[in-house]
Amino acid sequence: MTRPLILHPDRLFPADKVSRDIARKLYESVKDLPIISPHGHTDPSWFAENKPFGNPANLLIRPDHYVFRMLYSQGIPLESLGIRTQDGSEVEQDPRKIWQLLADNYHLFRGTPSRTWLDTVFHDVFELDVQLSSETADLYYERIDSYLRQPEFLPRALFERFNIEVIATTESPLDDLRHHQKILDSGWKGRVITAFRPDPVLDPDFEGFTDNLAQLAEITGEDTSTWPGYLAALRNRREFFKQMGATSTDHGHPTATTANLSAAEAEALFRRVCEGVSAGNCSAEDAELFRGQMLTEMARMSIEDGLVMQIHPGSFRNHNKVVFERFGRDKGCDIPSQTDYVHALQPLLEAVGNEPELSIILFTLDETSYSRELAPLAGHYPALKLGPSWWFHDSPEGMRRFREQVTETAGFYNTVGFNDDTRAFLSIPARHDVARRMDCVWLAQLVSDHRLQEDEAFELATDLAYNLAKKAYKL
Amino acid sequence: MTRPLILHPDRLFPADKVSRDIARKLYESVKDLPIISPHGHTDPSWFAENKPFGNPANLLIRPDHYVFRMLYSQGIPLESLGIRTQDGSEVEQDPRKIWQLLADNYHLFRGTPSRTWLDTVFHDVFELDVQLSSETADLYYERIDSYLRQPEFLPRALFERFNIEVIATTESPLDDLRHHQKILDSGWKGRVITAFRPDPVLDPDFEGFTDNLAQLAEITGEDTSTWPGYLAALRNRREFFKQMGATSTDHGHPTATTANLSAAEAEALFRRVCEGVSAGNCSAEDAELFRGQMLTEMARMSIEDGLVMQIHPGSFRNHNKVVFERFGRDKGCDIPSQTDYVHALQPLLEAVGNEPELSIILFTLDETSYSRELAPLAGHYPALKLGPSWWFHDSPEGMRRFREQVTETAGFYNTVGFNDDTRAFLSIPARHDVARRMDCVWLAQLVSDHRLQEDEAFELATDLAYNLAKKAYKL
Amino acid sequence: MTRPLILHPDRLFPADKVSRDIARKLYESVKDLPIISPHGHTDPSWFAENKPFGNPANLLIRPDHYVFRMLYSQGIPLESLGIRTQDGSEVEQDPRKIWQLLADNYHLFRGTPSRTWLDTVFHDVFELDVQLSSETADLYYERIDSYLRQPEFLPRALFERFNIEVIATTESPLDDLRHHQKILDSGWKGRVITAFRPDPVLDPDFEGFTDNLAQLAEITGEDTSTWPGYLAALRNRREFFKQMGATSTDHGHPTATTANLSAAEAEALFRRVCEGVSAGNCSAEDAELFRGQMLTEMARMSIEDGLVMQIHPGSFRNHNKVVFERFGRDKGCDIPSQTDYVHALQPLLEAVGNEPELSIILFTLDETSYSRELAPLAGHYPALKLGPSWWFHDSPEGMRRFREQVTETAGFYNTVGFNDDTRAFLSIPARHDVARRMDCVWLAQLVSDHRLQEDEAFELATDLAYNLAKKAYKL
Repeated sequence: MTRPLILHPDRLFPADKVSRDIARKLYESVKDLPIISPHGHTDPSWFAENKPFGNPANLLIRPDHYVFRMLYSQGIPLESLGIRTQDGSEVEQDPRKIWQLLADNYHLFRGTPSRTWLDTVFHDVFELDVQLSSETADLYYERIDSYLRQPEFLPRALFERFNIEVIATTESPLDDLRHHQKILDSGWKGRVITAFRPDPVLDPDFEGFTDNLAQLAEITGEDTSTWPGYLAALRNRREFFKQMGATSTDHGHPTATTANLSAAEAEALFRRVCEGVSAGNCSAEDAELFRGQMLTEMARMSIEDGLVMQIHPGSFRNHNKVVFERFGRDKGCDIPSQTDYVHALQPLLEAVGNEPELSIILFTLDETSYSRELAPLAGHYPALKLGPSWWFHDSPEGMRRFREQVTETAGFYNTVGFNDDTRAFLSIPARHDVARRMDCVWLAQLVSDHRLQEDEAFELATDLAYNLAKKAYKL
Repeated sequence: MTRPLILHPDRLFPADKVSRDIARKLYESVKDLPIISPHGHTDPSWFAENKPFGNPANLLIRPDHYVFRMLYSQGIPLESLGIRTQDGSEVEQDPRKIWQLLADNYHLFRGTPSRTWLDTVFHDVFELDVQLSSETADLYYERIDSYLRQPEFLPRALFERFNIEVIATTESPLDDLRHHQKILDSGWKGRVITAFRPDPVLDPDFEGFTDNLAQLAEITGEDTSTWPGYLAALRNRREFFKQMGATSTDHGHPTATTANLSAAEAEALFRRVCEGVSAGNCSAEDAELFRGQMLTEMARMSIEDGLVMQIHPGSFRNHNKVVFERFGRDKGCDIPSQTDYVHALQPLLEAVGNEPELSIILFTLDETSYSRELAPLAGHYPALKLGPSWWFHDSPEGMRRFREQVTETAGFYNTVGFNDDTRAFLSIPARHDVARRMDCVWLAQLVSDHRLQEDEAFELATDLAYNLAKKAYKL
Repeated sequence: MTRPLILHPDRLFPADKVSRDIARKLYESVKDLPIISPHGHTDPSWFAENKPFGNPANLLIRPDHYVFRMLYSQGIPLESLGIRTQDGSEVEQDPRKIWQLLADNYHLFRGTPSRTWLDTVFHDVFELDVQLSSETADLYYERIDSYLRQPEFLPRALFERFNIEVIATTESPLDDLRHHQKILDSGWKGRVITAFRPDPVLDPDFEGFTDNLAQLAEITGEDTSTWPGYLAALRNRREFFKQMGATSTDHGHPTATTANLSAAEAEALFRRVCEGVSAGNCSAEDAELFRGQMLTEMARMSIEDGLVMQIHPGSFRNHNKVVFERFGRDKGCDIPSQTDYVHALQPLLEAVGNEPELSIILFTLDETSYSRELAPLAGHYPALKLGPSWWFHDSPEGMRRFREQVTETAGFYNTVGFNDDTRAFLSIPARHDVARRMDCVWLAQLVSDHRLQEDEAFELATDLAYNLAKKAYKL
């Protein structure tokens, strides 16, 4: 059976006419605002080289762990989806076969945000008007494949069509940012900036930590085997990233642990960690403490250089070791875990939390912390703001819970607008559209409850869709 | 004052007309589907012997801890409700007096699912049309008492009237399944199967663990004092249960801890546990580790014999020691506690989580794990599925929270339909009716939000009410 | 821009007409009921002395940490808001300047309960009809300032106008209750009672614990250096508070830990704690255990003297040490933290939980415990009741979550009505109004869902707004 593909103009709006009408009007006022994308994982080479995207499977399945994790959960081998193995052993190469697997199993995505994002891309970008299914798989494949060869579907053309005002990618301190340089040199007006993600040189558990420090020394000319040299090297790279356009740093840690050691303690810890990692016997406690200390060091550097600091804790990375060993990182095997913020952040906040010039944006994968910890913390500390609902919670219900649990204690102005946090470039407008709709739904509810006046809601709708992100990330 | 007892046809449906109309239509399509009851605690002797149920108090109050725990919480002694004491000391024997206590305090159940289930039984089974109250207590007593003596109210007749396609009971490996055998021998067509619940022989803290192992040895002819003999005895009983119709196992553990020890470690642990329990000094750590190891062993056996595995962790059993000592187990004193899944299940999942042929159905009493842990785990591991909202959360609001927090990450097809999990046989249709209504409400919301098309919702409504349970439990 | 200030008669009611109409009718039946305020922090000297309240800033900003914490979170120094420093260093003294800061930043409160409470006070008490803003700051200041000088705005006049039937303040056992005595002596009919809050003499970590015990000895004539003398002194003060009108005790502990030591163990612990505190080396474990033991002792005394016991655990006090050192306690720096009840309360409940005459009212700052722990505990133990949503959760969304997560397991009759828990006297009617509205919204939903009949909802509306608090607190 072939179903029509309809993107209803009222999608995600409440069924009740009163609040739906308010939501519609609010949404109308923000839907065409430019996109601010301050945190994400698009590949800067796309915009530097401006080559056509690959075939439908390479574009929409292979890089999107939201998509293939669901298929995998129902027993479809990752090999059959063309996911590359670490040892190079054979996987499916035929993109049509891979595409057919998605089409045959598209019902699995009912009720998920992936379905919304994909349908929006299919409809708005590829002008498809029937639903993806076994029967329509070929139609889809050919349509997408042929469109991707046209100049209007090159990365820069899409960037412009999507009305992106600025997008941030995320790079390691060891990256030479050549793609960003190429974009700057090209004269193209699209604003693609980087963000400083120092996990590879801050986290003793990161693959290749010792080599990474050596490489950091080489790049910066600093002696990263000493604590002062290591800090100087980090300052050096932050400065380079800033010159290349970065306005923020990003820190993905297993927990929110922070520390505030004396200089002597920190130096001793650094030595212990470097020796331990080299010798293969760095203790879990030292690694955790070092990550925690480095968050505080990064916050101090942010006070100096003005880079906004993002902390993304709470993911148990590579939970499925079997998949990790065969396919590597980022294969949908990262699972959220319970995260304490109140005790964990105390050392950092005692050190720098009262600095109004500092801006730390906190994310969580543990929704229980919204009303219990994050909103009370952000509703008090001048340095703290709350990032939007993230990753597994970057969805209509997740966004609703975020606003319902955060607003009453932290208000709107301790939040920072939306992050799409995606490597799925084509879905960026769809993701921002969902966020704008859900924020308008929340505002419409406050208006229809008479908790907020309508003209205030219009102001807020624009703030949430555009101004807050621009201000919080200094864009 | 006497209030009418009305079961409104639109009960639990949203007030908004648009979504209510969709919910109604969806519900209409599933309300008469046969009941699949894959997990519960009805007594197989009812169907084997087919004798009349007892008086109203014996049928509806004494066995239902949902009912008497609420009365007890308001200061009504369990003795006055006829709950039997361990030492045989006297309790109320007059079923009319016990019934009157429920009637006098029926207002306590306002807003609870017990009220819905009881009202539905009163109305649909006993054709009562006034609400239970002090004034109507006698009317109720006499009506129920007289109906129970009629042949249409015998267990098998009700089973057929309730349109139950299959029901699973739960038995210990030490049970000889004589009632199930009698049902099979009787030629009656009702399908009543067992489920394998090995806690008495897997959990060192279970009352009589040592004796239970001895009994297991006797039944199976295996030497349960050795690790290989113990495992062989378990395999033997699983096979027997399977021959008697079982399609699943069930494991009620205090936590979700699992382990994956080497054979030598497991064997040593088994010896330590057996000796410790005999000597009365088995450590809590060993007991916990052994339960955890046995979950992994059970999962491995499930791969061999195809029995679906259910894990129900997180209940602090017999929290009220005063009540436990006087009245024994299952007296409403079990309290949920915080439950970690991400770390706890990792050893088991590393061992068997990628087996698409294995099916592990997980339940939780800790709703915070829905969006943070369970949906992400089930949305990735092929072997994992999520059981429905359970026990304290087996209620309209609990079901709503389950769908809202699980669907976006795990979808619908990593869930397994509804379980009534009850020993209150008469309430089974009422419980399935609530679940079907609430699932239709959720689907109606997705349709009215334009997240799902209406014909997809019809497919899903049938899947959630019937197909998923049948498929997940191989029924 | 100047916006009108409108308190819509339907505020907080659902947009849907069916349920809104029910909510309206229910609310109409309870909105004018007298206010029962069984737990709060108003200053008894106001009613004893009946002097005019200060200027607008002194009345509405300086004492309200909900208000200044939000301003502080956005970088506004507490000094500029006139918050007094510990060392007496200079802060802003001009109340007009302070008021202007609130006015200029009033948009920060959009979507918060503070906004609702303030607007209600502005509109209902001060008859203002434009919204607070930079432009209207002077108008506001002058209106409030002039009204406060009029006799109708004296504390007792407002008490009567607010239709307060009884209000409880909270005092230390070391307080001589002179203000309460003065009120009793005055012949004024307003009922202002105290509540017994013994943290200063029960908590080894409380500032001045040793001195507090000495003072307690002096007041009571008991030897508080011995365990029996200490207990006798506490009994003595409880009796005094009771004679002065108290019907309850209140306990603010960092966790819900309780203990049930033997008399000998308790006595030894008491000695260890007293010596440890004097010597400055009381261990954290001993302090925690002692607080836990004292909760059980207090519960036992409650069985003797009939005082209702309130437990408020789970706040990490003075999280921001920088602010604490400069400005002291209660400056918006208390942050909720994860709280276990199931294990923590077990010793106390084993000792006294089955006493139907005892009444322990539990509060939480950790909403995850509502459905998982608190409702199951209160739905079983005769001695336990649940306090309303508290502090950060004392808000429309917080109240909604409370009812949704608690009702199905604990029903309505294991809850105790509303507590305003405030020192912001003028906002008391607004707070009760929000609670009454939100309870009516919840009842209206149950009625429109056909889970409850309308006349039952009317009974419940009155119970929740008035009867339950009166009964639970024996008022």
